[in-house]
Amino acid sequence: MEGELILLDFRFSPFAARARIALAEKGVQYKLLEEDILVQKSQFLIDSNPVHKKVPVLVHDGKPICESLIIVEYIDEVWAGSRPPLMPPREDPLRRANARFWADFVDKKVYEAGMNLWRCKGEAEREKAKEDYISNLKLLEGELGDAPFFGGDALGFVDVALVPFTNLFYTMQRLGGFSVESECPALAAWAERCKRRESVAKSVAEPVEVYEFVMALKKKYGV
Amino acid sequence: MEGELILLDFRFSPFAARARIALAEKGVQYKLLEEDILVQKSQFLIDSNPVHKKVPVLVHDGKPICESLIIVEYIDEVWAGSRPPLMPPREDPLRRANARFWADFVDKKVYEAGMNLWRCKGEAEREKAKEDYISNLKLLEGELGDAPFFGGDALGFVDVALVPFTNLFYTMQRLGGFSVESECPALAAWAERCKRRESVAKSVAEPVEVYEFVMALKKKYGV
Repeated sequence: MEGELILLDFRFSPFAARARIALAEKGVQYKLLEEDILVQKSQFLIDSNPVHKKVPVLVHDGKPICESLIIVEYIDEVWAGSRPPLMPPREDPLRRANARFWADFVDKKVYEAGMNLWRCKGEAEREKAKEDYISNLKLLEGELGDAPFFGGDALGFVDVALVPFTNLFYTMQRLGGFSVESECPALAAWAERCKRRESVAKSVAEPVEVYEFVMALKKKYGV
Repeated sequence: MEGELILLDFRFSPFAARARIALAEKGVQYKLLEEDILVQKSQFLIDSNPVHKKVPVLVHDGKPICESLIIVEYIDEVWAGSRPPLMPPREDPLRRANARFWADFVDKKVYEAGMNLWRCKGEAEREKAKEDYISNLKLLEGELGDAPFFGGDALGFVDVALVPFTNLFYTMQRLGGFSVESECPALAAWAERCKRRESVAKSVAEPVEVYEFVMALKKKYGV
């Protein structure tokens, strides 16, 4: 259907939350289809993303777009005129490359380190996973510097990529026995600043709910 | 130095080859610094890419750009006017998202499947790795369809992302006992078509040389 916009979603997925935040930032209306990914994926999801079979998928005019960072950049390119851009301007390829680098860093390092903290067995592994997780957050804090957002004065691509993972801080702190606020005060303040935006507040699950979900997953998979 | 362009390279790296091909496609002159990544990484590499400490790094006017697909998109954005673009036009966000998806697929699936075929132990693992590798190539062949290039009539982003990995076909065939040409004739023909371009021919190592390098690596790491 012309102009139809559907998001295949899962409310606890930080990757899907990126798409929700980007759509909210652009003020775009869409139909949200919640997937029960732990029980049974819908045929629509499998048909829309046959390669990875994962949420989020944005289906625009019947055409699926997959992989969360690609979806965010797509949203930024399609709804380019209406609201401030998420990516730095075309005239500044270096800042664009930098934004892509740190968003990719979230996927490659922050997500993986969080998974390791979740799956680790024994004290030595836990200590290693915790140190790794914190050192990645410190790199991000260094990149943020004194700016209010990674995007500078306004929320940008890296902010959208990272902020859904901050609702895992509470879980990671309980699993690892540390405080993000003590280790990375500027990053903790940035996360709170982001969550004061409606686009973020309405798109990310509550930290305690996320913790309970993660604990249920641990039990389910016996890790 | 104003305008200075340096590529931190390793000749057998398919990731670094992407940067070499993109620079050749744009007709850009640069200084190539070969890194001896297996023996000792240079301090310049570590300082330029402190997060991943990997080649390729493109250093432009003293500013490092890391991660091969981000480098290729950077090159395409900086040298936008001189030669045909590698990415689909801004007016076509869907084709841009699709190009990013398949380039990302090479990183996530083709590279990993190749690594598994390289590292696997025993016949059952080898069979599984081989099937996985071939099924990924078949997905790419399906995406190529009847077009001469993934970019359509001209070499594009996905072509640049994938073609350096085709010089591993010979190695994979010998490790896995199969023929890419039999399994994926259109993809094999596409690879030959790409290699007739000077930008590709001068940027990728010879298949037999790659095989000898991979065998030396297997011996070094005892896999």
